[in-house]
Amino acid sequence: MEYAIGVDIGGTKIHFAAVDREGRIVDSHRVPSEAQLGADHVMSVVLKGVDATIKRLPSGAIATGIGVGSAGQINFETGTVEYAGSQLPGWTGTPITRILKEKFHLPAYADNDVNAIAVAEQMYGAGRGMNSFIVVALGTGIGGAIVEAGRVVRGALGCAGELGHVSVDFNGPTCENCGNNGCVELYASGSGIARIGRKIIAEGGGAVPWQPDSKEIAQAWLQGERYASQVMDIAIRALAAAIAGYIHMCNPQAVILGGGVSEAGAPFLNALDQEIKSRTSAAVRSAYRLLPAYVGNDAGVIGAAGQVWLYENG
Amino acid sequence: MEYAIGVDIGGTKIHFAAVDREGRIVDSHRVPSEAQLGADHVMSVVLKGVDATIKRLPSGAIATGIGVGSAGQINFETGTVEYAGSQLPGWTGTPITRILKEKFHLPAYADNDVNAIAVAEQMYGAGRGMNSFIVVALGTGIGGAIVEAGRVVRGALGCAGELGHVSVDFNGPTCENCGNNGCVELYASGSGIARIGRKIIAEGGGAVPWQPDSKEIAQAWLQGERYASQVMDIAIRALAAAIAGYIHMCNPQAVILGGGVSEAGAPFLNALDQEIKSRTSAAVRSAYRLLPAYVGNDAGVIGAAGQVWLYENG
Repeated sequence: MEYAIGVDIGGTKIHFAAVDREGRIVDSHRVPSEAQLGADHVMSVVLKGVDATIKRLPSGAIATGIGVGSAGQINFETGTVEYAGSQLPGWTGTPITRILKEKFHLPAYADNDVNAIAVAEQMYGAGRGMNSFIVVALGTGIGGAIVEAGRVVRGALGCAGELGHVSVDFNGPTCENCGNNGCVELYASGSGIARIGRKIIAEGGGAVPWQPDSKEIAQAWLQGERYASQVMDIAIRALAAAIAGYIHMCNPQAVILGGGVSEAGAPFLNALDQEIKSRTSAAVRSAYRLLPAYVGNDAGVIGAAGQVWLYENG
Repeated sequence: MEYAIGVDIGGTKIHFAAVDREGRIVDSHRVPSEAQLGADHVMSVVLKGVDATIKRLPSGAIATGIGVGSAGQINFETGTVEYAGSQLPGWTGTPITRILKEKFHLPAYADNDVNAIAVAEQMYGAGRGMNSFIVVALGTGIGGAIVEAGRVVRGALGCAGELGHVSVDFNGPTCENCGNNGCVELYASGSGIARIGRKIIAEGGGAVPWQPDSKEIAQAWLQGERYASQVMDIAIRALAAAIAGYIHMCNPQAVILGGGVSEAGAPFLNALDQEIKSRTSAAVRSAYRLLPAYVGNDAGVIGAAGQVWLYENG
């Protein structure tokens, strides 16, 4: 039996798993990243976790390779960290796959964590059998991953997929992260929804210093509260405008929605789909489907490992 | 000597040429499309033009294949017209490559006309040696073509590349073509610039019924006229916001600007580049260059023919 070793590296924890060709996890554990101790320490945590996972494989089982998904911008060709922010201090420049290959003498792959989720969805999830789709990851920010002609689009430096920094208002507020105006992240991410919520509550003249987070706003929206309808209307229209633009650009087969949207569930998905449909021309509208992400909380580590099977023949 | 036969099909005329591997035209002629006479007639014009071009090849020369670029949405896989609007009535559904193969017994390829221009830029122009770039074609509308991993991105139905229908204001005016709000085409295309010009002149209280077109506005901008600065400021910011969004999505090596922008020349290119740079994060900003299209008025037919060389080995 062959297994791929998957590693999902985030700012707070690192997730290790042995995963078979069908995407089933046979062994899994999470440890703290201890990112504040620097890149060398994080890499030593990675090496230790991979080593432990290989040693715990069932007797007679073979480790075929190692696949890493990491926060930050990863250059897939070189397996090196192109850029990582404050989440992983000092991580920029780390030659992840070179270190893994030297230590374990196995094929190794490294990509951005949202790209790894796209691999999981492509191999085992909502994007199965599809050649062109986008994964939209709604969280505190908005991440994205693009699959075209069956391959993840990485771009010149491995930074592709930043759907959150698509502008939906060129006269809108300046985005502190990228300098563009009216990035969709400012309206439809968790922090964006909370921001708009504060603004609308303040405009409503409420003297109560009440600052709901995006989950509370989504819940209030489901219960029909008026302020929340105003907030979610803005979020849905902004997100639909960005996705509609992408659909016109790339004419995909699917838009796969993942991340913290689950608390708003089917009503959110349906409202968003209606709005996207009203913003797309007939041909591209007929081609795409809006789908919820299929692979759950383990998508990161399953997709990280999945790279081993996806790329083993080049 | 081998030649590819290129055919560039537009709503008003069809351009034929015999093109060598280096992109040099040895024989070229244009005929009226007579599109109002219907698809069968247009196809008969195409067959006649290809036949004449092959017959006029230098003695001993070989026709290696036929490449077509056509207005409308073309399904490259099937070589069939997915959708064409009023520019080519009845053209939808025409199996272009099947008809060409039956008649001439040569390999045949068909793609959208802006995708053909991207092939020309990739093989002989500003995108030479690049794996990832976009062509932005500024005309009455805004067209686009995306190259990723060295191949034109076509999408599920061959409709990819519609940069003009990327929204830059989700609360903006409704686009009659696609239903989205605030499509960049409404601000930065030839018709968009003229529209904004009329609005700004009217707001200025001018009683003169003066309606400059986009070329006049671009000229007035170069001469420092105040109303034109306001118009072009909007056009440049809107276009930069859309391109910046694309750069965050796809992290390309280049943005190649073609079409009717030439009348505003280097000042326009420089102003746009400044604006794009201010709207992109450091990593993706360092990776891209804004370049003027290199291949001139013959780019359509050269790229159409170029498909024969680009795809001859699959």
